[in-house]
Amino acid sequence: MTGKPNILEVDGRRLWDTLLRSGEIGPGRAGGLCRLPLTDSDKEMRDLFVRWCEEAGCGVTVDRLGNIFARRAGEDESLPPVLIGSHLDTQVAGGRYDGILGVLAGLEILRSLNDRGIRTRRPIELVDWTNEEGARFQPPMMCSAAFAGLLDVDWILGVKDDEGAVFGEELARIGYAGAAPVGGREIDAYFELHIEQGPELEAEGLTLGIVEGGYATRGMHLDIHGECAHSGPTPMDKRRNALVGAAMLICRANEIGWEHHPPGKSTAPRLTAWPNKAGILPSYAQLTVDFRHPDKAVTERMVAGFEAAIPDCATRANVEIEIAQSWSFGTEIFDQDCIALVEQAAGDLGVAHKRMLSQAGHDAYNMTRICPTALIFSPCKDGITHNEAEHIELDYTLPSVNVLLNAVVARANR
Amino acid sequence: MTGKPNILEVDGRRLWDTLLRSGEIGPGRAGGLCRLPLTDSDKEMRDLFVRWCEEAGCGVTVDRLGNIFARRAGEDESLPPVLIGSHLDTQVAGGRYDGILGVLAGLEILRSLNDRGIRTRRPIELVDWTNEEGARFQPPMMCSAAFAGLLDVDWILGVKDDEGAVFGEELARIGYAGAAPVGGREIDAYFELHIEQGPELEAEGLTLGIVEGGYATRGMHLDIHGECAHSGPTPMDKRRNALVGAAMLICRANEIGWEHHPPGKSTAPRLTAWPNKAGILPSYAQLTVDFRHPDKAVTERMVAGFEAAIPDCATRANVEIEIAQSWSFGTEIFDQDCIALVEQAAGDLGVAHKRMLSQAGHDAYNMTRICPTALIFSPCKDGITHNEAEHIELDYTLPSVNVLLNAVVARANR
Repeated sequence: MTGKPNILEVDGRRLWDTLLRSGEIGPGRAGGLCRLPLTDSDKEMRDLFVRWCEEAGCGVTVDRLGNIFARRAGEDESLPPVLIGSHLDTQVAGGRYDGILGVLAGLEILRSLNDRGIRTRRPIELVDWTNEEGARFQPPMMCSAAFAGLLDVDWILGVKDDEGAVFGEELARIGYAGAAPVGGREIDAYFELHIEQGPELEAEGLTLGIVEGGYATRGMHLDIHGECAHSGPTPMDKRRNALVGAAMLICRANEIGWEHHPPGKSTAPRLTAWPNKAGILPSYAQLTVDFRHPDKAVTERMVAGFEAAIPDCATRANVEIEIAQSWSFGTEIFDQDCIALVEQAAGDLGVAHKRMLSQAGHDAYNMTRICPTALIFSPCKDGITHNEAEHIELDYTLPSVNVLLNAVVARANR
Repeated sequence: MTGKPNILEVDGRRLWDTLLRSGEIGPGRAGGLCRLPLTDSDKEMRDLFVRWCEEAGCGVTVDRLGNIFARRAGEDESLPPVLIGSHLDTQVAGGRYDGILGVLAGLEILRSLNDRGIRTRRPIELVDWTNEEGARFQPPMMCSAAFAGLLDVDWILGVKDDEGAVFGEELARIGYAGAAPVGGREIDAYFELHIEQGPELEAEGLTLGIVEGGYATRGMHLDIHGECAHSGPTPMDKRRNALVGAAMLICRANEIGWEHHPPGKSTAPRLTAWPNKAGILPSYAQLTVDFRHPDKAVTERMVAGFEAAIPDCATRANVEIEIAQSWSFGTEIFDQDCIALVEQAAGDLGVAHKRMLSQAGHDAYNMTRICPTALIFSPCKDGITHNEAEHIELDYTLPSVNVLLNAVVARANR
């Protein structure tokens, strides 16, 4: 504990040990994690997390989408809870901290409150959201979206992964198809701690970022339709190679990213083609692209520039191109009262911080739709993330966890 | 039979019925075939083919790679056989005729000789080569290559498909891991009939193409290495997206094809990326490209132009690019004596024909390495092939089959 009255601190060593234990479950190829949702390793992590929560005296509830809620009772159980959370799933080649820190920091906060015999007026709940990454089932952040009423629960239960496995069946298989309804109840406030996933805090020597909003992000899946033909005899002017159309689109998206760099960026993370075999021109490709900029008007201009290039790419590659699905996120604004609580705690703890924007999507974005929400960042080494080399240091992480603890307690005692 | 003495003709109706029966095995999505090698549908087709051959009085032998040989005895069994053949496997979205016509026309030739009680001096053998297309196991034409001593049998038995299934295990599973050694015996001559897979014959109103050689073809697999990173926060100048590098290469290959069109062409039929998920930049991609031109010197210039662009693509995409595997085919020259027999038969039958080059790879290319070889083409509608819409008409196909019959008999009686 610090010398100041009422200022709380967590047990950093215990938090770190908990993170290390999580880092053993679902190992990747290169020291990180491959803990895809609803796999055996996800089940192993969930089982351990539930045990930890129960050992911390919490009541555990699982909803129909496998979101896990651990509840620490408040003095007035009739009041809506303050919710802390993030996600325990990872990318295919993911790090050991990403959303995991946010969940296990929440657990450490509950444990620390227990240690000190501190009761809060409102209950505090901790949530592990299912499938935040979208690495197996699309779209990402789907289960917090359903909690916030933005996606339909039954639709999500029917979503298939690339191999055809069904979300609902996989959820039941690992034993996390819970009985609780998804959302539909009042939440007092939602707090999420996440690693920054960018290089700014580290570069500026800060240990806390207070997120005001997100980069305006626009993404889309494009379907490219060509025609199968022999890759040998077919003359160039008869070719309708979907892969060539997709490649032109990727190059254009990349150019647009550079034209708006910095701080704009564009991405083409995913391309599938069919039949995708030597000797035959692909008749179909599906491409994912996205565009991000802090200024929503600029993001819209980036998208408009890309869409304007589609007819030209279609003509040159002799294919049809259509936008099959599109989405946007990141413009939500976080709650100023919650931000004030965070800044108050940061001031009390003497934690150097700044306000900033998030460049990645987070479950917190969805929660802004239904309750006051705060999202805070701790630094990560070189901004490397979604990469097995992702790394954090406890000394640079602990300040944000302590800020979270004090802000949550302040909110829960309101 | 025609009025001319010694001029033979096959039973076109029976040939067509046999082709239609084959067209029922391994249906595709759109009326064509998806009969990948060593699958259950391949086994079903092989079983039927073997039964047909045995009903035609042939002795059937299967070699260690599953190549099936049906032998019709000659008057002098000490002489090397004349071999007719092609392949019964198809692309993922393939037609019903492609290599199939060549095998089943060979069967019809044996049946017609039986009908007429015609004996030949040399034995005649019919072969179905395993995995000509390369649609499941790479490279294409591998089993005729092994027969010609160009690839190692044990290496082929260990090749894996995209899902990790092993060639040798799949071959044993369908019951076609034969005991006969692969190749290593004398073949008097090899004749292959194939659909043209291009539009020239139909456009010129011809029913027979006599192949002198192939388009000079150079192909390669490229490995592109980038780095996984979050598709959101990572700044453009830190991105090492393997998919962007691959897209630049595809665009350059496509430009080179157009720069040499006609008759040059280039292809990018296949691209895989890893992890290939939304939210994460791919660290790896593998791309297949090839370049074709009738003039070998031009093909080499096309390849040189592509290779010269690799460093620039690597720099601009901030990735590493390496050529992982490369191959060439198509410059082999077919045997003038065999061509003369074909032209003699075409003249006797009054079949309009021309000499031409093949733009696709064929098992016949491999056979040129070990025996006099002829490759002949029959027309296909609009040149459409490696497409389920591939189509031929019996009236435009029969002339080439009859030419094949007479040329083979002439060779076998030499």
